[in-house]
Amino acid sequence: MSDDPVIAVIGAGALGGYYGARLAQHGHDVHLHMRSDCQAVRRQGMRIQSRDGDFLLSPEQVRVYDDPAAMPKADLVLVTLKTTANNVLGELVSPVLKPESAILTLQNGLGNEQRLAEQFGEHRVLGGMAFVCVNRTGPGQIAHLDHGVIRLGEYKGGPSERAERIAQLFRSSNVPCAVLDNLAAGRWEKLVWNVPFNGLGAMLNYSTDQLLERAPELIRQLMREVIDAAAALEIDFDPSLIEEKMRHTLSMGAYQTSMQIDRQMNRPMEVQAIIGAPLQDAIHNGVSTPAMQMLYNLLKAIDTEQF
Amino acid sequence: MSDDPVIAVIGAGALGGYYGARLAQHGHDVHLHMRSDCQAVRRQGMRIQSRDGDFLLSPEQVRVYDDPAAMPKADLVLVTLKTTANNVLGELVSPVLKPESAILTLQNGLGNEQRLAEQFGEHRVLGGMAFVCVNRTGPGQIAHLDHGVIRLGEYKGGPSERAERIAQLFRSSNVPCAVLDNLAAGRWEKLVWNVPFNGLGAMLNYSTDQLLERAPELIRQLMREVIDAAAALEIDFDPSLIEEKMRHTLSMGAYQTSMQIDRQMNRPMEVQAIIGAPLQDAIHNGVSTPAMQMLYNLLKAIDTEQF
Repeated sequence: MSDDPVIAVIGAGALGGYYGARLAQHGHDVHLHMRSDCQAVRRQGMRIQSRDGDFLLSPEQVRVYDDPAAMPKADLVLVTLKTTANNVLGELVSPVLKPESAILTLQNGLGNEQRLAEQFGEHRVLGGMAFVCVNRTGPGQIAHLDHGVIRLGEYKGGPSERAERIAQLFRSSNVPCAVLDNLAAGRWEKLVWNVPFNGLGAMLNYSTDQLLERAPELIRQLMREVIDAAAALEIDFDPSLIEEKMRHTLSMGAYQTSMQIDRQMNRPMEVQAIIGAPLQDAIHNGVSTPAMQMLYNLLKAIDTEQF
Repeated sequence: MSDDPVIAVIGAGALGGYYGARLAQHGHDVHLHMRSDCQAVRRQGMRIQSRDGDFLLSPEQVRVYDDPAAMPKADLVLVTLKTTANNVLGELVSPVLKPESAILTLQNGLGNEQRLAEQFGEHRVLGGMAFVCVNRTGPGQIAHLDHGVIRLGEYKGGPSERAERIAQLFRSSNVPCAVLDNLAAGRWEKLVWNVPFNGLGAMLNYSTDQLLERAPELIRQLMREVIDAAAALEIDFDPSLIEEKMRHTLSMGAYQTSMQIDRQMNRPMEVQAIIGAPLQDAIHNGVSTPAMQMLYNLLKAIDTEQF
């Protein structure tokens, strides 16, 4: 990757828009693929309201495209498409690739790196998790409410020079970023939280504080099942992780997960990436996951996602 | 039981009100315990809109009470209280009992006969299932939409002269009634339908036709688990029962189960009687019922019932 890499963000909603805007704010060469807000951003630029200070990007500072075929080839492709649109991911990413492009997916759940690796070669692929609260508040307008750190790593292999350079890009753009020794372990640790809180939050329409009050044993059971599924992949968590995450969640107050909000909005939910994919791994490895299985079946019955 | 028995109906909502009204219409000596509609019925009597012909009962024809202590001792006590109020059932039934009173519970689910037997002696107890669509449409007003048959039997022991006399009471009042050889088998057969359709209907807020379309495999799995739980009690159903019930349900159209309606109305749901009690039996007998267990846990998390 060059010192002044061309960065393409594919599927720039609130999350991709926020990180893309941060990179553009700090002078990086950023190109955002976005659908519905494309015309608005071309006219007015982007407005980021951040707890770290608001900022505006003029239409000259932020280049946006509704068609990836019009974008320049990128050194770094950030994938922030919602996983429910993964069926079109290949055709969105292809046009911006050149032989040496790296692809970093910040999508939720499990299976996204593998999907990209199968289509574009595993040597290209990195994955990361964004711990950030961002919302789209209007056309080209994003509210950055809290947090912001990215944890990323190579899909195959440990820390690399490339991963460190990408982390440096973020750090130089006011985005804290850590390189993971083991991306899979990071993904599974996030699933220990995401499976119960996204899954039950959507199923029961409860915020995290309501879930802690009304279904604490269900949360613990689902966490245990995810930990068991991870253990079958030789990713070992200390059982104390469960109570640690319960306590941490309590401190978050009345938080609504993305899947709960998607359900309220009648939007497709990321059931496959967040619950289906780890469940598939568990079944493949003969791990007993009855609660996760039933939760998955119930969510599929209400999901508006089309396969 | 005498030829002109005193009949008390405890917890006369739409169901108890309908059957009580039928018995009163045909000259039987009926006394209804009801809470909220008591004053209205004392003033105006009852109005039954039935697909078999509408009828009115004057305040002289139908005697109602909000306090069972004011009721005469009964030869036959019909229990139609919602199972979510079972914690007060004993104190409601006690005042109308005399040594030879028979108690017939038409309540939903499992465990109601046992509860009555423990409190009042198993020799008194019969159970029955009402296959009827009735709705309360106003104070003292009940709509009888469809069906109406009662199937009843002794809690302990097979067909009895007493059961046959009670059946005859109903038949003489325009209510089809059959005496069951084996009440438990009848209860469990109804659970094969009630567990999936009430449970999933409430959980997913889907009517029966939507459930058949969106969650057919979940329905089948729950039915299989109920059939397995029954088999452990030596109640054997042919596996063809599943597809038979699927077909029959399809013919019912867009039917909303009582538990779905209770959830919509934010009323306590009969989770314990319809799902908790058979689940408890299954667990006691070592039967694997993962879907029923998870469904129960989820419903408990949203139920407004207080224990």
